[in-house]
Amino acid sequence: MTKNLVIGIDLGGTKIYTALANLKGEIIAEVKVPTQSALGVTGVRQNIVRTVEHLTAQAGLKGQVRAVGIGVPGPLDVKEGVVYQAPNLGWRKVPLKQLLEESLKLPVYLENDANLAAIGEHLKGAGVGVKNLIYVAVGTGIGGGLILNGQIYHGAGFGAGELGHMTIEPEGRTCNCGNKGCLETLASGSAMVQKALDLVKNGQGQNLLAATKGEPQKISPYLIAQLAAARDKEALSILKAAGTALGIGLANVINLLNPSLVILGGGALKVGLPYWEAMEKEVSRRTMQAAWQQVRLVPAGLGDRSGLYGAIALACQYETSDVCRQTF
Amino acid sequence: MTKNLVIGIDLGGTKIYTALANLKGEIIAEVKVPTQSALGVTGVRQNIVRTVEHLTAQAGLKGQVRAVGIGVPGPLDVKEGVVYQAPNLGWRKVPLKQLLEESLKLPVYLENDANLAAIGEHLKGAGVGVKNLIYVAVGTGIGGGLILNGQIYHGAGFGAGELGHMTIEPEGRTCNCGNKGCLETLASGSAMVQKALDLVKNGQGQNLLAATKGEPQKISPYLIAQLAAARDKEALSILKAAGTALGIGLANVINLLNPSLVILGGGALKVGLPYWEAMEKEVSRRTMQAAWQQVRLVPAGLGDRSGLYGAIALACQYETSDVCRQTF
Repeated sequence: MTKNLVIGIDLGGTKIYTALANLKGEIIAEVKVPTQSALGVTGVRQNIVRTVEHLTAQAGLKGQVRAVGIGVPGPLDVKEGVVYQAPNLGWRKVPLKQLLEESLKLPVYLENDANLAAIGEHLKGAGVGVKNLIYVAVGTGIGGGLILNGQIYHGAGFGAGELGHMTIEPEGRTCNCGNKGCLETLASGSAMVQKALDLVKNGQGQNLLAATKGEPQKISPYLIAQLAAARDKEALSILKAAGTALGIGLANVINLLNPSLVILGGGALKVGLPYWEAMEKEVSRRTMQAAWQQVRLVPAGLGDRSGLYGAIALACQYETSDVCRQTF
Repeated sequence: MTKNLVIGIDLGGTKIYTALANLKGEIIAEVKVPTQSALGVTGVRQNIVRTVEHLTAQAGLKGQVRAVGIGVPGPLDVKEGVVYQAPNLGWRKVPLKQLLEESLKLPVYLENDANLAAIGEHLKGAGVGVKNLIYVAVGTGIGGGLILNGQIYHGAGFGAGELGHMTIEPEGRTCNCGNKGCLETLASGSAMVQKALDLVKNGQGQNLLAATKGEPQKISPYLIAQLAAARDKEALSILKAAGTALGIGLANVINLLNPSLVILGGGALKVGLPYWEAMEKEVSRRTMQAAWQQVRLVPAGLGDRSGLYGAIALACQYETSDVCRQTF
């Protein structure tokens, strides 16, 4: 029987997003379930396996699947298929490729989730035909994937793209990574929330506090965005400061890599225009003239499916069939 | 007649360094002359042509030269051979390839000087066999060249590698490029001198002033280094602060690109150990653990000939002969 389907999985800290696709990279069916990372590796593995079984439950479909591509939130060994560390999942040294291949009886390929999002955008999204592009995911943290000379760039140990840990304020707040003043501590969703909490702690941010009915732990980037849209000055200044910090980080990357495209994705971008405008203004101020003229800054073309399409492509590209590799 | 020689030229703001080499990249003869940039494009062109004539003056040698590779200090269009801007030469939009080809009657290839130094180190120096490396030149300014996936990385408009204009202090000193707090304003040779001048202006730095016999305009990185070696605290703290700033910039690049090697070259490195040690300490503090474990920081293996060897390789590599391309 011809095997003409693949599975792509975007494994996140809160949800597992899985798709069944054909060899052109077209999604035939998809499903999104909670990750339930509290259940540990065994539980998450079971949830992944179940979504694959669910998508291939129709008669004969499973036999048509060639391979599975999966994106993981954290550094990993692409060749061995081992996840070194995934803080959002609470994982350390998990041989995910082996575990899933045992359960699924299919070849499984792993890649960093931001890299897959970069690949997805490059093949099907805002970056089609672009040789040098940077994909930046701004969510709870900040990650990135680099397409250089038309290919994903891994670096010496599959660790490239960590622009969230670029120092922006040498003596700034301590980051989870141990460094001080990382971009992530200034421009991410959690940085915005932290700034709002700091305000509340100092007796400011009364509108923010009121909007959570006095429960500051309920402050989210979306709440800050809502207040900013209603012209709350403090909320607005939080968004602008975060956008400005992101702009500094992106300017540094643009000066170093001279890309023709920067694609921004991730949940925190949904905070709206003030964040984007502050970012863009800062990038224009801090980039070399030629580099600024040669680059465009755009939102992800595939919405929250950038990583999913990348995972589908991964399942395809590692296979030896020319048809599969050439069509997607 | 078999053409089995090439010319490599490293064109700098103060000197023109030219070599005649065989197809294995071995230097047969070399010459260094003042650039005399005050003479303008015509004068510098004449100086370049004269060094080439001088090196090939022996009977029959000129007929054996295949091509000329030349490194230029500034952004340029590699394909068209046009130098966009070379501040140290006072050049803007100079069609150097065309000008030199007319005079020399030989094919001439241009490349950014830091890129050529990266190529030189990759082929003959500290980076032989290394797939992903960053070459950083610390002199009056700070420039860089990136070897990624085994090849020089140019970016969208041949502008990649500008790590001197990475923002390190968002509200710091204004750089020549217009941005504030660039790495170059904190870690370069001229940054060290500026810091010493600031001290003198504030009535401090008395040893520095004394060493110049009261002429602060004579302060140089080497003078600062001499005083630091004699344990002058202010001179030492200038070197350490500059090294620390360089470390922040390199940590950012290492986190982003996960290289296995960073090669440091350029005159300002001659200031000695305190600068290097401060740099290395800061890199170790600010890099992700895995990236730090995977990278080495080393001085250039070819001394001040990194760019010269790169220029020789350039002359070779653009030629179609397999012999030339394969041997070097």
